[in-house]
Amino acid sequence: MQPIKVYADRRSQPSRAVIIFCRVNQIDFEEITVDLFKSQHLTAEFRKINPMGQVPAIVDGRFKLFESHAILRYLASVFPGVADHWYPADLFTRAKIESILDWHHSNLRRGAATLVMHTALAPFLGLATSPHVVKQAEKLLMQSLGRIESVWLKGDAKFLLGSPQPSIADLSLVCEIMQLEILGDDERDRFLGAHEKILIWMDNVKKATSPHFEEAHELLFQVKASMLSNAAAANQTSEPSTKLKIVSKL
Amino acid sequence: MQPIKVYADRRSQPSRAVIIFCRVNQIDFEEITVDLFKSQHLTAEFRKINPMGQVPAIVDGRFKLFESHAILRYLASVFPGVADHWYPADLFTRAKIESILDWHHSNLRRGAATLVMHTALAPFLGLATSPHVVKQAEKLLMQSLGRIESVWLKGDAKFLLGSPQPSIADLSLVCEIMQLEILGDDERDRFLGAHEKILIWMDNVKKATSPHFEEAHELLFQVKASMLSNAAAANQTSEPSTKLKIVSKL
Ligand SMILES: N[C@@H](CCC(=O)N[C@@H](CS)C(=O)NCC(=O)O)C(=O)O
Ligand SMILES: N[C@@H](CCC(=O)N[C@@H](CS)C(=O)NCC(=O)O)C(=O)O
Repeated sequence: MQPIKVYADRRSQPSRAVIIFCRVNQIDFEEITVDLFKSQHLTAEFRKINPMGQVPAIVDGRFKLFESHAILRYLASVFPGVADHWYPADLFTRAKIESILDWHHSNLRRGAATLVMHTALAPFLGLATSPHVVKQAEKLLMQSLGRIESVWLKGDAKFLLGSPQPSIADLSLVCEIMQLEILGDDERDRFLGAHEKILIWMDNVKKATSPHFEEAHELLFQVKASMLSNAAAANQTSEPSTKLKIVSKL
Repeated sequence: MQPIKVYADRRSQPSRAVIIFCRVNQIDFEEITVDLFKSQHLTAEFRKINPMGQVPAIVDGRFKLFESHAILRYLASVFPGVADHWYPADLFTRAKIESILDWHHSNLRRGAATLVMHTALAPFLGLATSPHVVKQAEKLLMQSLGRIESVWLKGDAKFLLGSPQPSIADLSLVCEIMQLEILGDDERDRFLGAHEKILIWMDNVKKATSPHFEEAHELLFQVKASMLSNAAAANQTSEPSTKLKIVSKL
């Protein structure tokens, strides 16, 4: 059988979730990098794959699909080798996982992605930002982390919903939180430090998907390192450019 | 069998989607109003139903569930009387519907709900708003409407994906767009006027779910009427309060 095609940029959290899922479940795929920083997602060619111009997207034979959660559900459903715990057939358990996946978009993702975009990435993207937007994003992120703990990581739950094994919701949410790395250690800790259950859970997801988790996150840590060294350089010049000034706040 | 309990406020678009779905599919339910304007979603009692403090939520026996898309999928799956077109068993068709449902959150919903919140509802909610936020929401809404047409309503499609019958995605998205009613006719037309396919599709969804669609939207039109009459009253006073000034812009 022909491998599926995965269009991804590993700097993108939902892209990483799909890549890790394929690797862990030994789904044969060809990875096609769509470099967001080079605007490759905006080309006419990529729009034929995903008319919304976003990663990730997959092509399976003649079938095209975008939206990472839809992709994860599809892969879990069509590849017989995928263990049930990733996307349980039991309707009640599945419904609870769907609820987390849906909640994710307007809460954890909206908080975390907006924050990263409007602080660390804004200068690179030439994005106009505002303290109001940043403050709202911080608040939503903090609230979302608290709620994941109090609602889905009760007691000494290893994974969401107290499951002994991870689901696609664990993978999606943890990849999102990992994106906070590029805020720098201090900022990351400001959000995660007070959330011990989140930290333990992230570690559980990492271990359950190792070494694919670490491998898929390598590029993110490279981006982080280069942003931090840019920031350090900016701190040494007497008149840092505005761009670098913003980066140096990380 | 005991009827399910649906916790809803009919002024909320995802609440209406769930109510219409139950009625159309003759799912026996008891509707429990959670009045958002009276902050009933923030009571300790309601938090036992949905710890996130949002509507809609359902209780089916001992099983509790929140997030409207998760609820719609669950109801379509557990009630054998629900016709397949609402949530097709075919994995490819289902995946395409999941993609729309996932896309909805950060695009159409984020655009439409933010706009409604930061214009029509802001004065009632005592919400600090900004022209930047409103402008971004308008842009996202316009873009989302355009994309629904170009991606999912190609040719003379009756419903999304060219389906001859509606799915839960049609219902969710149309209920969201209906919320623009409370911006007033001129504002609504500014967004929908140029989108003829959207208007035809909305009408198709309405007809396919009539008279339940109209019945579930009655309260929305009452809210609209009372907001417009408040606005008219404000226009007649010589020194309108700030609150009413904002409403009068609708
Ligand atoms: N809800 C979508 C989000 C996709 C998304 O936002 N992708 C980003 C990268 S993380 C992207 O492609 N951004 C480029 C753009 O929106 O122009 C998913 O889970 O797949
Ligand atoms: N994604 C959720 C959205 C739920 C939602 O935002 N509900 C709103 C009403 S439309 C609500 O309860 N707002 C009260 C609040 O957030 O405090 C769904 O589809 O169910």
